Amino acid sequence: MSHPLFKKHQALLDQAIIALKERKFFTPYPEHPKAYEEWGNEEGKASFSKKLNTNYLGVAEGNSDWIGEEISPYWQTGLGIQYPKENPQEVINKAKSAFEIWKNTSIKSRAGILIESLERVKSRFFELAYATMHTTGQSFLMSFQASGPHANDRALEAIAKGYEELLEYPEELTWTKPMGKFDLALKKTFKPVPKGIGLVIGCSTFPTWNTVPGLFANLMTGNVSIVKPHPKAIMPIAILIEELRNVCKENKLPEDIVQLAVDTVKEPITKIYAEHSEIKLIDYTGSSSFGDYLEGLQKTCFTEKSGVNSIILESAQDLKSTCQNIAFSASLYSGQMCTAPQNIFVPETGIETKEGKMNFEEVLSTLTQSMENLVTHPKMGPGTLGAIQNDNTLVNIDAQGDFGGKVILEQLNISNPEFASARIASPKIVVLNATQATYQEEFFGPVLFVIKCKNKLEALQKIKELAESKGAITCSAYTLDEAFEKKIEEEMNSVFTPVSFNFSGPAFINQHAAFSDFHVTGGNPAGNASFTNSNFINRRFVWVGNRYMPNTL
Amino acid sequence: MSHPLFKKHQALLDQAIIALKERKFFTPYPEHPKAYEEWGNEEGKASFSKKLNTNYLGVAEGNSDWIGEEISPYWQTGLGIQYPKENPQEVINKAKSAFEIWKNTSIKSRAGILIESLERVKSRFFELAYATMHTTGQSFLMSFQASGPHANDRALEAIAKGYEELLEYPEELTWTKPMGKFDLALKKTFKPVPKGIGLVIGCSTFPTWNTVPGLFANLMTGNVSIVKPHPKAIMPIAILIEELRNVCKENKLPEDIVQLAVDTVKEPITKIYAEHSEIKLIDYTGSSSFGDYLEGLQKTCFTEKSGVNSIILESAQDLKSTCQNIAFSASLYSGQMCTAPQNIFVPETGIETKEGKMNFEEVLSTLTQSMENLVTHPKMGPGTLGAIQNDNTLVNIDAQGDFGGKVILEQLNISNPEFASARIASPKIVVLNATQATYQEEFFGPVLFVIKCKNKLEALQKIKELAESKGAITCSAYTLDEAFEKKIEEEMNSVFTPVSFNFSGPAFINQHAAFSDFHVTGGNPAGNASFTNSNFINRRFVWVGNRYMPNTL
Repeated sequence: MSHPLFKKHQALLDQAIIALKERKFFTPYPEHPKAYEEWGNEEGKASFSKKLNTNYLGVAEGNSDWIGEEISPYWQTGLGIQYPKENPQEVINKAKSAFEIWKNTSIKSRAGILIESLERVKSRFFELAYATMHTTGQSFLMSFQASGPHANDRALEAIAKGYEELLEYPEELTWTKPMGKFDLALKKTFKPVPKGIGLVIGCSTFPTWNTVPGLFANLMTGNVSIVKPHPKAIMPIAILIEELRNVCKENKLPEDIVQLAVDTVKEPITKIYAEHSEIKLIDYTGSSSFGDYLEGLQKTCFTEKSGVNSIILESAQDLKSTCQNIAFSASLYSGQMCTAPQNIFVPETGIETKEGKMNFEEVLSTLTQSMENLVTHPKMGPGTLGAIQNDNTLVNIDAQGDFGGKVILEQLNISNPEFASARIASPKIVVLNATQATYQEEFFGPVLFVIKCKNKLEALQKIKELAESKGAITCSAYTLDEAFEKKIEEEMNSVFTPVSFNFSGPAFINQHAAFSDFHVTGGNPAGNASFTNSNFINRRFVWVGNRYMPNTL
Repeated sequence: MSHPLFKKHQALLDQAIIALKERKFFTPYPEHPKAYEEWGNEEGKASFSKKLNTNYLGVAEGNSDWIGEEISPYWQTGLGIQYPKENPQEVINKAKSAFEIWKNTSIKSRAGILIESLERVKSRFFELAYATMHTTGQSFLMSFQASGPHANDRALEAIAKGYEELLEYPEELTWTKPMGKFDLALKKTFKPVPKGIGLVIGCSTFPTWNTVPGLFANLMTGNVSIVKPHPKAIMPIAILIEELRNVCKENKLPEDIVQLAVDTVKEPITKIYAEHSEIKLIDYTGSSSFGDYLEGLQKTCFTEKSGVNSIILESAQDLKSTCQNIAFSASLYSGQMCTAPQNIFVPETGIETKEGKMNFEEVLSTLTQSMENLVTHPKMGPGTLGAIQNDNTLVNIDAQGDFGGKVILEQLNISNPEFASARIASPKIVVLNATQATYQEEFFGPVLFVIKCKNKLEALQKIKELAESKGAITCSAYTLDEAFEKKIEEEMNSVFTPVSFNFSGPAFINQHAAFSDFHVTGGNPAGNASFTNSNFINRRFVWVGNRYMPNTL
């Protein structure tokens, strides 16, 4: 049936499986837009524009009710795109029917279908970029990379890991036990049985990057999926679902292996699905409170929740390049990345550098200067900051005023010449004491705390406690002291938090590369799952072994 | 440090890892007592006898309070063996100290230490057999095999799978990303970080076989363990723990990587441990209600709970050998195995066999005759039935009288010439209708229900519903109809229940062979874990990846 597609993509799949093990640099979908020029930026922009103020067709069968309330953070006006409003029970019924066929579709056919869909999406990377930009507020380049090649890499990673896990055991074998005078021979079969229908819940900031790992892990392992995007960021994943459904249709397989379930902020439908007895799997990216609720449903649940990411600044090669690196990490998409740092711990005695000792005040001034230089730079500033996805993000930060500390850099007035109405905000920088509770909560968005500590050991202890109690996705450390580096690694790893050491230049802690970096460890409160380790795959199916007396076969 | 032990056992480990994948017959510890004659039956018996009415030394440091209330189901008198009564907080403190060293002990050293301990236990298989016999009531042969070679096989399986999983990713590598004019190179490390202290809760019927997978999976992955055996079946696992601790001591590693925590029926301590914040992992075999409580604690939890195992009898080669096989499976250890069948579904129209049609009554009479022949056989009977571990097992079954059905075989009066006081009971056989609720509960112990169904489809439907709602560890099917065989397989596998087809002669559904059969699928209410798939291992640790800018290293 779909073997031609498997053959077409087998070489890529084989490479991907090797890359998964080796963890070396591997990116089947290069990140630069230039690599996709044949599919055209202008055409992509035109396709996006054509969909504004229309009903989005191609993600579901004919339907009478249409809803949609996406707003561009760059225009601050509605996109006017409407999506079918579906009845949850009908969606589930369709998913059930599709499951009966998909679970019996061969592993190779599934792999072929899924990789083919990624190839189709590739031709729409520019359209996807504009859709992402005007729902999330990411800059054009980040939109292109995160929703396009980086998301495709993560999707392929899930397919490859799934393929590998599903073939762990032989499909059939003869087991022969010597019994003395004779042998007992039994035929045995081993089957990875999928769990059923999966709900994949998207977030507003990374509507495809955070959605595709769970979606493709489900589909690869024979489960079907209902995707419930954030009501403010639907279009990017709709494009992907459209292509998946198209490939299924062309290959005479049920399109309903993936369905789009849209809701509005006022009338949310996530709980209706999550609590439905037919939903066996849940993938989720979003707030900790809702994530905790989902985990409590005792289904097979994969979460990425919130955490508080910290930096420890103990000593550095060069203070300026260190502060430039930190400023970029904290400003990128205005701190709306789950990997963005919020807290920088600095000893009150200052830090050693290759250029000599820098006191605490010098660290502060270098940091604020780096931040100011970056965000006010006419070319770099708007492109780094992007726009703020949601009004509330700014409201929440503004409401805190000085956060009980000393504001050393206010939010600056930045404008984007291309988008006069863009909702832009640069990070506020606030100095706090180590005893204050403020920095121990996540403040999502453009704010950065510098926490003055007695010494490096207090800093490390605070960071460790915070990762253990509130969760952390990243941790960044600057130190030239080898013994202390070892200690940071041991302490932070013991609370299941990865550490990036002495990043400068083009290395940023925000970036987790598919096929090499695990995204979230799954071991601390920032989430219970990891893109993409074996658990992320093999909790989605169950190994079942059957045995047969051969004389009666 | 322990590399000599790794080298000593490396060949065995390598074989075990291959066997895990291949699922072919592999038993590094042959099951027949003859293979262990050099260590002597008489010596083992003497060692066991010498420990009666004494304090069991060698499982903990000096301690003033001693407790113990094991009773031999064969003698129906107390064994008089006393074990140290420990303070839970002190046990946890010792476990924490041991963890700090054990987690940093190399993977190879851990593998060497653990396999060496299995080799030591091998020399005590006979003693272990008597300890098992006089706590569980298993026959001598089952005691020897289940607690000796079969348990060692399962332990080695967990070690091998652990070793494989821990080496999934490279310890260190350089990741190089081409950036156009230059390359970005980062050093990356990947570490499988153990979760901490594991509580391993044993059961009264298989005190080592069901305990060692979790125990060795914990230890192999760098976690430490506190073993809380059932108060009525301590000695078998105490022997194993003693040997583990001895090998640690000899190799200058903390003995407290494994500790024995003993309690009494009146003063249980399991919840104190399970709810303790320092307990990160729980392994459990036992009742569903307590298992559900443990799963609800939201720790990393591996359970084997109860289920209702069914047989569907639709058609057979030969009715007599089929009934003999069923009678043996149901009588073995008087139905106290978690794999024992409880329900036999038979169409009221009878069954086809190669010798012609057999009506329902003929099936009943052949089954009762087979059962009677087996249990009253002077040599086979007592050896198959063993003894009843717990008085309540019989009280519960007696209290049900005819179970609302028709008793076609009463419990027979069997005596064991070797043990005049043995608590023996043969299975009662009761005929029920498919509409009765009785058979939809587990009745642990010697009772077998024959359920009269309208037809084979009703039978299959009932079995499937039961497996889905109450759980099932095994399912046995007799059918010569290929299409129906396929249907049974699909339907039962869809509720994550394995099926054994047409077992006769020396193949019994009760037996799950290490390195080939998964024990429990983890997908239905009979348990959430499986001996030994990758989940059983890799949920015990977390992959953490660190990144380093090489210029500052």
